[in-house]
Amino acid sequence: MRATVMTDWQLSVADLPDPSPGPGQVLTKVLACGICGSDLHLLKHGARQMALAAELRADEPPDPLRPIPFEPLQPTVMGHEFCGEVIEVGAGCDRLKVGDVVVSMPVVFDTDGVHALGFSSRYPGGYGELMVLSELLALSVPKGLPHRLAALTEPLAVGIHAVNKSHIGRGDAALVLGCGPVGLAVIADLKAKGLGPIVAADYSVKRRGLAEHLGADLVVDPRIETPIAAWRRYDGQRPLVIFEAVGVPGMIDQAMAMAPKDARILVVGVCMEDDRIRPMIGIGRELSIQFALGYDPAEFASSLLAIDAGKIDAASLVTGTVTIDGVAQAFDDLANPDAHAKILVEP
Amino acid sequence: MRATVMTDWQLSVADLPDPSPGPGQVLTKVLACGICGSDLHLLKHGARQMALAAELRADEPPDPLRPIPFEPLQPTVMGHEFCGEVIEVGAGCDRLKVGDVVVSMPVVFDTDGVHALGFSSRYPGGYGELMVLSELLALSVPKGLPHRLAALTEPLAVGIHAVNKSHIGRGDAALVLGCGPVGLAVIADLKAKGLGPIVAADYSVKRRGLAEHLGADLVVDPRIETPIAAWRRYDGQRPLVIFEAVGVPGMIDQAMAMAPKDARILVVGVCMEDDRIRPMIGIGRELSIQFALGYDPAEFASSLLAIDAGKIDAASLVTGTVTIDGVAQAFDDLANPDAHAKILVEP
Repeated sequence: MRATVMTDWQLSVADLPDPSPGPGQVLTKVLACGICGSDLHLLKHGARQMALAAELRADEPPDPLRPIPFEPLQPTVMGHEFCGEVIEVGAGCDRLKVGDVVVSMPVVFDTDGVHALGFSSRYPGGYGELMVLSELLALSVPKGLPHRLAALTEPLAVGIHAVNKSHIGRGDAALVLGCGPVGLAVIADLKAKGLGPIVAADYSVKRRGLAEHLGADLVVDPRIETPIAAWRRYDGQRPLVIFEAVGVPGMIDQAMAMAPKDARILVVGVCMEDDRIRPMIGIGRELSIQFALGYDPAEFASSLLAIDAGKIDAASLVTGTVTIDGVAQAFDDLANPDAHAKILVEP
Repeated sequence: MRATVMTDWQLSVADLPDPSPGPGQVLTKVLACGICGSDLHLLKHGARQMALAAELRADEPPDPLRPIPFEPLQPTVMGHEFCGEVIEVGAGCDRLKVGDVVVSMPVVFDTDGVHALGFSSRYPGGYGELMVLSELLALSVPKGLPHRLAALTEPLAVGIHAVNKSHIGRGDAALVLGCGPVGLAVIADLKAKGLGPIVAADYSVKRRGLAEHLGADLVVDPRIETPIAAWRRYDGQRPLVIFEAVGVPGMIDQAMAMAPKDARILVVGVCMEDDRIRPMIGIGRELSIQFALGYDPAEFASSLLAIDAGKIDAASLVTGTVTIDGVAQAFDDLANPDAHAKILVEP
């Protein structure tokens, strides 16, 4: 099969052997797969991240459910936001059949353990033509839901999880820093749950427009007004949850420096570099910082249902599509946030 | 009156005009006042802290309840862990009388606003012979409770607040990093509330002994075993709350690096310098970091009651007493944690 592969932290297009499904697994033809900002981060910071992960693991008890790390010198097919059509069913599968359209949490099991789809040397992710999934984790896409929208189940689940993890409730206000796909997913879920008011900040006029479309009550260009001043103008009274959805060094400190007393900061932006904070700000204001990652199976399933029910206008997030040959260019294009939110690969 | 004063971040002994009580205030003779680690920090990092506070205030709406900042070039009497005897009663006071022994949250009100005792150019703190208190905030010390123990109400309230703020519950485990007065206060309150198991780490054999005496189930010398390895050996199963009670750069990152998945970190150590963290550790493990400062009036009052009821062996915390002339030397001595926990000033 053809795929965009990462080898030694570089992208290229390659022909790989077709994967085949083992017991309890299905083979799917990839219909669409979103490009995630964390894939861009990985190319740049992956080597350092793997070293950090190895350092931390050395101090931890073994965990059989921890995904098996990928081998950076082997070709790895990234892509963990996918929708596929079943084309072959492995031994022991009893629920899915050829022709079913499915999404799945990006995890596959075999007798060796757990593999993270998109970050595995053994199982290819969605930037290729074919993927193997565990039947146990695959969810059937409701009839009539376009595969492009179903492929957004994963990134929107990240927003659902971040909102849940923040414990934001009725009577609280939300300030969302960064309206890339993660920030937009947070806004969409806050809106779907009837929470807010929601103030959202981004430098990109396109992304601010999407934020407004998906449910932000006020959007702000930080060049013109600070996000916290905008929130004070719009609300300024309610207990505040700040969602940090930018993920570059300095953002956690910025969120702390703008936070009112007793504010909660939910970090859902993925900053892979070292960062600097001033603890006295946190102490003086008794802030809390909650980091969030991923989602659980119920959140993933509820994301698919919310898209299907039209609670979230997922289509508005898709700002481009490419083929396998266009992935490397799309990575470059995504560095320009004025033009894009989510680009889908259609192999 | 004689007092140890801080002027331009230097300590000296000076004669100051006697303070006098305004309406609603009482004048007290200081019987004992604990030396707090944050006073040591302030001498070293105070100038930078005041600049940071001013920077943050510039961005905030005015808050009439924020204490009026002190003037570093004016002589300031620090000391906010005090017990005193009422020697004069101001106009309008109707509860306290001369001879009453009292403690108070280190805050005094007048028509200009709120002043933080120990950090005010107008109202002296407890490293002097006389203090003015607001009658409203003063609590009568129960008959028979020695003033040395009553003076520990404040530092022990810090531990009560940190434990409350952590939301640690039955079934959770506690790992306390640092067994100075703050860490010991946390341990004492965990024990008084029947929470634990409690694992505590400190380089000082004296402080480890105090930690064990006050309720730690296991104490560990980090030179011999890492705190997290000690907890894994002793328990390793329960949801973990890590209390960071050291307050120097690098400790928050260390706590994050040792934390198991979903752990909560309660930062009660006061780090006044810039700090470095690796957000990916927090993200990968979905950690939460809660900063804590001070206590509320109910926590302060419950601290006094817990000491009086003997729930906490407060006497064990006192490792030395000095007069006003000995404060500067005591500051130096407290830099040697092998010898000391809490030193009291008896003016």
